Amino acid sequence: MELLFLGTGAGIPAKARNVTAVALKLLEERRSVWLFDCGEATQHQILHTTIKPRKIEKIFITHMHGDHVYGLPGLLGSRSFQGGEDELTVYGPKGIKAFIETSLAVTKTHLTYPLVIKEIEEGIVFEDDQFMVTAATVIHGVEAFGYRVQEKDVQGSLKAELLKEMNIPPGPVYQRIKKGGTVTLEDGRIISGNDFLEPPKKGRAVVFSGDTRVSDKLKELARDCDVLVHEATFAKEDRKLAYDYFHSTTEQAAVTAKEAGAKQLILTHISARYQGDASLELQKEAAEVFPNSVAAYDFLEVNVPRS
Amino acid sequence: MELLFLGTGAGIPAKARNVTAVALKLLEERRSVWLFDCGEATQHQILHTTIKPRKIEKIFITHMHGDHVYGLPGLLGSRSFQGGEDELTVYGPKGIKAFIETSLAVTKTHLTYPLVIKEIEEGIVFEDDQFMVTAATVIHGVEAFGYRVQEKDVQGSLKAELLKEMNIPPGPVYQRIKKGGTVTLEDGRIISGNDFLEPPKKGRAVVFSGDTRVSDKLKELARDCDVLVHEATFAKEDRKLAYDYFHSTTEQAAVTAKEAGAKQLILTHISARYQGDASLELQKEAAEVFPNSVAAYDFLEVNVPRS
Repeated sequence: MELLFLGTGAGIPAKARNVTAVALKLLEERRSVWLFDCGEATQHQILHTTIKPRKIEKIFITHMHGDHVYGLPGLLGSRSFQGGEDELTVYGPKGIKAFIETSLAVTKTHLTYPLVIKEIEEGIVFEDDQFMVTAATVIHGVEAFGYRVQEKDVQGSLKAELLKEMNIPPGPVYQRIKKGGTVTLEDGRIISGNDFLEPPKKGRAVVFSGDTRVSDKLKELARDCDVLVHEATFAKEDRKLAYDYFHSTTEQAAVTAKEAGAKQLILTHISARYQGDASLELQKEAAEVFPNSVAAYDFLEVNVPRS
Repeated sequence: MELLFLGTGAGIPAKARNVTAVALKLLEERRSVWLFDCGEATQHQILHTTIKPRKIEKIFITHMHGDHVYGLPGLLGSRSFQGGEDELTVYGPKGIKAFIETSLAVTKTHLTYPLVIKEIEEGIVFEDDQFMVTAATVIHGVEAFGYRVQEKDVQGSLKAELLKEMNIPPGPVYQRIKKGGTVTLEDGRIISGNDFLEPPKKGRAVVFSGDTRVSDKLKELARDCDVLVHEATFAKEDRKLAYDYFHSTTEQAAVTAKEAGAKQLILTHISARYQGDASLELQKEAAEVFPNSVAAYDFLEVNVPRS
């Protein structure tokens, strides 16, 4: 599980930062990639990575501002042009369906794969036996969501060496041992399955703020997460600008990370007014409140470790 | 008057060539820039040029395929974000209005300037005292247009030195001389205005093919033009592919340029299958038929000289 930042700028593209998109690479976990937002030229950024558009399984849109969605029609079309066949689902606020469907219809784009578009509300928007994705309303002047991707805990694997030492040969009994409860062996011995299991692997959680002012709901969504990807459009001193434009400062993002008990904070959606050293300053401002803070840049890749 | 190629690829963006857009720089003529097509990330390409989005006065769309229009919403929005105030007009086939209006509506983009969207038909689509733009239907499987930008002839300026030598001092009489006919001076002399005028400056013509198979209408549209910007998606030998996908080969573009009596041919919309040397070969193929041929590349700038 890795995060790959495809666009870390705010509002309009600049030479140094493209508009917003982050890839959550789940290649080991499910051989696929999920995108969070898809600003214009996200497909162009992808050309400079190892991501294959046909591997993109889900796209989650935080809100309907142009710098978060204008890359969708092109990416969807190119995924088709390159022979993608697997279903792709786009999750987003009301309006996402009209935007995608109109764009594909007027350009007579016929996709080679099934496209599902889900206009979401707050709550669980996706769940299978591996992951649960939850959306919470944030504060941005238009309908806007933060997303939490929660990996489910994985049961520990069998202690094969120990089973061997105890002369318990492989067979259907292993399935019973895996369940962890009391098991009577063929030879009459009674064992506890839990003694033969490695500790469970705790699922990881990555949270995306989208664009937002300071938000209690987001803080709850981010509770104890491994990585909080939080917008920081403005520097600490530009608190008034942040409020007026429904955005956050570095410091506000850091306070949210701290109060939520997040393990790591990554700042993104950084205004083009902060260039070069000014953008390094942003990281420092956050780190004063929450030490494990990083300011993202285009093509930054971050591993999400198990804790 | 200069052409600046912002995107010279076909279908989907590649590292070497972005999708289609060409700027016609009319800074000397009318302090503005016109665009022909606007594929995704055209605004990103513009970041690497001296073009200011607020100077873009008109955008002409040849047809509604995604690689020719997906850059429109972002460019229109950014032009507003950067404080553009002058009216902008977009000309294009049916569907262009729904695409732009839906894109701006769902993203709640409120432009700071008047936007006019004209769904066009064949014929004159714009005319003022400087320029006339004519559209002709071409052959691309969907409604598609080629455009001819015809600069109007400019009257020659007064021969100031000669007037001085003849002791004809400046005054309202100069306006009468400019009209070229017989003029009676205050001192009774009778002169012919034409003797005191430089020769008129012939207007230039630039023609854009859009995407098309070989088309008689396009050949007529390109009659005696100064520059023909013609698609050449395929090499000479891939004539069947070109036909099947409603495109042209290098050779077909060159034959059109020759038969139309064009002065210069610029090939664009070049498939990503031709890279490096292969794309130089395309230019050679055209030049065998029409010597004054150039294969465009992203950021190529071409002056359009007066003949």
